[in-house]
Amino acid sequence: MNFVTVVTKNGSPEFVPPAARIAVFDNDGTLWAEQPFYFQGLFVFDRIRSLAPQHPEWKVDQPFKAVLENDLKTVAAAGMQGLIELVLATHANMTTEEFESVVKDWLATARHPKFNKSYTDLVFQPMLELLAYLRANDFKTFIVSGGGIEFVRVFSQTVYGIPPEQVIGSSISTRFEVQNGKPILVREPKVDFVDDQEGKPVGINKFLGRRPIAAFGNSDGDFQMLEWTSASNPFFALIIHHDDDLREFAYDRASAAGRLDRCLDEAPKRGWLVASMKKDWNRVFSFQ
Amino acid sequence: MNFVTVVTKNGSPEFVPPAARIAVFDNDGTLWAEQPFYFQGLFVFDRIRSLAPQHPEWKVDQPFKAVLENDLKTVAAAGMQGLIELVLATHANMTTEEFESVVKDWLATARHPKFNKSYTDLVFQPMLELLAYLRANDFKTFIVSGGGIEFVRVFSQTVYGIPPEQVIGSSISTRFEVQNGKPILVREPKVDFVDDQEGKPVGINKFLGRRPIAAFGNSDGDFQMLEWTSASNPFFALIIHHDDDLREFAYDRASAAGRLDRCLDEAPKRGWLVASMKKDWNRVFSFQ
Repeated sequence: MNFVTVVTKNGSPEFVPPAARIAVFDNDGTLWAEQPFYFQGLFVFDRIRSLAPQHPEWKVDQPFKAVLENDLKTVAAAGMQGLIELVLATHANMTTEEFESVVKDWLATARHPKFNKSYTDLVFQPMLELLAYLRANDFKTFIVSGGGIEFVRVFSQTVYGIPPEQVIGSSISTRFEVQNGKPILVREPKVDFVDDQEGKPVGINKFLGRRPIAAFGNSDGDFQMLEWTSASNPFFALIIHHDDDLREFAYDRASAAGRLDRCLDEAPKRGWLVASMKKDWNRVFSFQ
Repeated sequence: MNFVTVVTKNGSPEFVPPAARIAVFDNDGTLWAEQPFYFQGLFVFDRIRSLAPQHPEWKVDQPFKAVLENDLKTVAAAGMQGLIELVLATHANMTTEEFESVVKDWLATARHPKFNKSYTDLVFQPMLELLAYLRANDFKTFIVSGGGIEFVRVFSQTVYGIPPEQVIGSSISTRFEVQNGKPILVREPKVDFVDDQEGKPVGINKFLGRRPIAAFGNSDGDFQMLEWTSASNPFFALIIHHDDDLREFAYDRASAAGRLDRCLDEAPKRGWLVASMKKDWNRVFSFQ
């Protein structure tokens, strides 16, 4: 609130005009939960199971076989390359409209294993309040996610009040085609952009074209975004620390999803704040 | 104005809520002039001349030699591949901040050969009025340019009132680096995205994530953008026809820059309007 007061007060030496009040938010682990695994990953696993009858080869081929056998250790061992294979098999070879409807259906029906809630119920109440507070002070709020841009856009407006054009994320290529006189975009099995780590400032520059003055993250995948934002003067940077195993999950330095290590080490010397979910948040989810 | 009335009137069967009132504008030839050649091309030629002393090889190598000798016919004959070579030689191997300052300097000093005005004076007065009119009716206005995204962003806010995050365009890759503790983005000599023809709906989907309801163009490079927009219901699509050699330039089917051919043929059957600069525009430039 100090920061917001200083940058919004006319005549303050650190006044920032409304148009330049850009705040960027990581999504997984920052705006909504990301355990036991990134929710988009859980979507991928569900899709693999749904599509398995049409793909008998998945009973043999890894990492598909491991997904079908619920063997998440083998899935994890397949690393980034394995994850990309799973994503491309479930996210491509359909139109953008078809993909949107598949994601919508999943979000409407899937339930989180620990909380038995919709995934879109697992957004952090203090972050919703923060988004509203910043917007009330003429900030423009953007999501900068390592997750898929077209996945996040399906719910960004209804859940966060963030329109699709203010979502930046990882993407696969699309191809324009006219089929029976109807223009469509076909999602191709090819990675276009990875919006993580160094990709985050690259994506911010590509999509947004200016430097944010505030950034919010929760993992080392956000390090470069916070570093890029911190070259603003003034700037604000916050890290969400997941240290509340009772109300959510507790994880940081050794986690597979949302690993927080370098950020924790360097936060003090860089002037980044660390919010403890356990100590600083009255509520984690709206239903609690 | 009929279209705007219909989509903004509460209770109208074709009412569109403000958030979905997206209008996309081509830049070269639609918002500002593009003759005798795309202005960014003229910027490239000026940069080649400025940088020539550090590149003695350009006295021999094509298409650089042709630029230095003002032999635009040979430059044109080098085609897209030649143009890309020239762009990469002048747009890369510097930081994003350095590029912005080079473009700013050029815009502040360069003069158009026919009008002896700044290039940013060569924006179309009726289009400025149209942008303002749409925004007054809660439309969000975007540029979707075949030109370089970081080139257009330098002047989009001051000239058109369009903030950088509402500019979509062609791009080269950038690389994140930390130099002496300072995070920078280095522009690499590598094409990232070509926002022209089929690239325009791809770019609109990538950056904007939803379909516009109104589109404005002036060349066949805009065909697919208009086609994509026309699948909205309702939609509005307009083509600017450059048929005023006295106040601006007259060109269409046979032009090197801004060729308008298929759009003219198909406009009537697709319900696209064609605006004649000569007959429909009281003023072309604000200084006239």
